[in-house]
Amino acid sequence: MIKVYSWPTPNGHKVHVMLEECGLRLGRDWEVFPVNIGAGDQFKPEFLAISPNNKIPALVDPDGPDGKPIALFESGAILLYLAAKTGKLLPKTDRLKFQVLQWLMFQMGGVGPMLGQAHHFRMYAPEKIGYAVDRYTNEAKRLYAVMDKQLASSKFIACNQYTVADVAIFPWLRSWENQGIDWADYPHLKKWFDLVGARPAVQRGVKVLADLRKPLTGDKERDILFGKTQYGQHGKR
Amino acid sequence: MIKVYSWPTPNGHKVHVMLEECGLRLGRDWEVFPVNIGAGDQFKPEFLAISPNNKIPALVDPDGPDGKPIALFESGAILLYLAAKTGKLLPKTDRLKFQVLQWLMFQMGGVGPMLGQAHHFRMYAPEKIGYAVDRYTNEAKRLYAVMDKQLASSKFIACNQYTVADVAIFPWLRSWENQGIDWADYPHLKKWFDLVGARPAVQRGVKVLADLRKPLTGDKERDILFGKTQYGQHGKR
Ligand SMILES: N[C@@H](CCC(=O)N[C@@H](CS)C(=O)NCC(=O)O)C(=O)O
Ligand SMILES: N[C@@H](CCC(=O)N[C@@H](CS)C(=O)NCC(=O)O)C(=O)O
Repeated sequence: MIKVYSWPTPNGHKVHVMLEECGLRLGRDWEVFPVNIGAGDQFKPEFLAISPNNKIPALVDPDGPDGKPIALFESGAILLYLAAKTGKLLPKTDRLKFQVLQWLMFQMGGVGPMLGQAHHFRMYAPEKIGYAVDRYTNEAKRLYAVMDKQLASSKFIACNQYTVADVAIFPWLRSWENQGIDWADYPHLKKWFDLVGARPAVQRGVKVLADLRKPLTGDKERDILFGKTQYGQHGKR
Repeated sequence: MIKVYSWPTPNGHKVHVMLEECGLRLGRDWEVFPVNIGAGDQFKPEFLAISPNNKIPALVDPDGPDGKPIALFESGAILLYLAAKTGKLLPKTDRLKFQVLQWLMFQMGGVGPMLGQAHHFRMYAPEKIGYAVDRYTNEAKRLYAVMDKQLASSKFIACNQYTVADVAIFPWLRSWENQGIDWADYPHLKKWFDLVGARPAVQRGVKVLADLRKPLTGDKERDILFGKTQYGQHGKR
C-alpha cells in the first residue's frame, strides 16, 4: 500500500488526484496520513526524514524501483513517479513528453509559488501590504492569461491529451476567488477548469482529508506557517 | 546549431552551464540570442511564440525528436531535454533518477521562486517593506539550511553524482549576498558551492552574455519587470 503524507491544500490535492486518475484507489492501493501543517507536524523528525524541506506532499511506495521501498517529496517528482509506475498521464513520445514537462515546470515554478504568494498577501498576512497584494494579484492575472491563451488552441494545457500538467494546475485554480480572479476574463481556461473539475477522479481527489482543514485564522497557526519557523528562528539549524 | 534565447540571470545560467557540461560548445554547437528582459524583449511576438510565459530561457533545437525542430521553455524542462539528448547528468536507474527529479523540483518550486522574491524585496522593490524582506530572507535561510543538511551526508545535492539538480541550484546561490546569507552558517553547502563553481563548464556558462547585464536601477526597467506589464495592465490580454 502506497503511503501518502499530505494535507488538503493544492499541492496535496495534486497527488490525491493523480493516484485516483492512475486507477489507484484510496483504502485499497494507497492510504493517507494527515500532516497538519498548521500545527507544525511538518517539523517532526519522522516527517523530515522523508521530506527534508518540511513540506507536504510526500510519498512512500513500498514497491518502488527493483521492488524496494522509495520515499519521495515534491509533488512534481511524485506525479512523474506515478506516471512512470502506472504508464498513465505522460505521453510516451519524446516530443509530447517534453511539451508536458515544460507545462508541469510552469506549474511548479510559476503557478504554485506565485499563486501561493497571492494567497499569502491577500488572505493570511497579518498586515495588508498594498504593494505586495498588487504584485501577486497582477502575477496571478498574468499567469491565468498565459493559460487562457494556450487553451484557446489546445484542449488540455500541454497538448490535446489530459496529462500530469493538467493534474498539477487544476487544484491551484480552485482558489481563484482568493487570487482576485474574474473567470469572465479567461473563457478558454474556464472551459478547461469545468472539464477537468467534472472528472470523477478529480472529484474524489480533492475530497481527501477535506474535513480536516480549517481556515488559517489563529495566531498560533500563522506563527508556525509564516512566522519564524524552527529553521527561520535560528537562521539555520 | 541549438538556439538559446536567454539573459545573464540565474535561470539563463542554468541552461548555459548545462549545455557546456553536456559537451556542447557555444559557437560550435549552440548560439545565444540575448532577450533583454529589462527592455521588454520578452513581450515581443517572436519570443512569445516560443516562450508564451514571457520568460527566459527558451531553446530551439533544429535536431529535436524524430530529427524535427523542437521549441522549449522552462529551464527545468530544458535541462531534462538536454540530459536526454546527450545522456548526461541524469542517472539512468529509476531510483536515482527520481531522487534527482525531486531535488530539481525543489529548485524549480522553492529555490528559484523564493530567492527571486528575496532579490525583489531586498534589492529592487521601490519601497522597503520590512514584513516582505523578513519573510523572504527567512525563507532563503530555511532553504539554505535544508540544502546544508542534505550536503552533510551527500557529495552532491541529490546523490553522490553531479546532476541536473546541482546545475539548477548553483546559479541561484551566486547571489547569496543579495539574499542575506552568511556562508559561515552553511559549511557543507559552501563546500559544494566551491566545488561546483570550480568546474570549467560552470565557469564558461556563467560568463555567457555577462557583459550585457546592468544593475536594475532605472525606473523604466523597473516598470517593465515589476510594474504593470503588457499582461498586468489589462488584467488579461
Ligand atoms: N514545491 C513543493 C511545494 C509544497 C508546499 O508548498 N507545501 C505546503 C502546503 S501546499 C506546505 O507543506 N507548507 C508547510 C510549510 O512550508 O511549513 C511541492 O510542489 O511539493
Ligand atoms: N520557471 C522559469 C522562470 C524563468 C524566469 O523567471 N525568468 C526571468 C529571468 S531569471 C524572466 O525572464 N523574467 C522576465 C519577466 O518575467 O518578464 C524557468 O525556470 O525557466
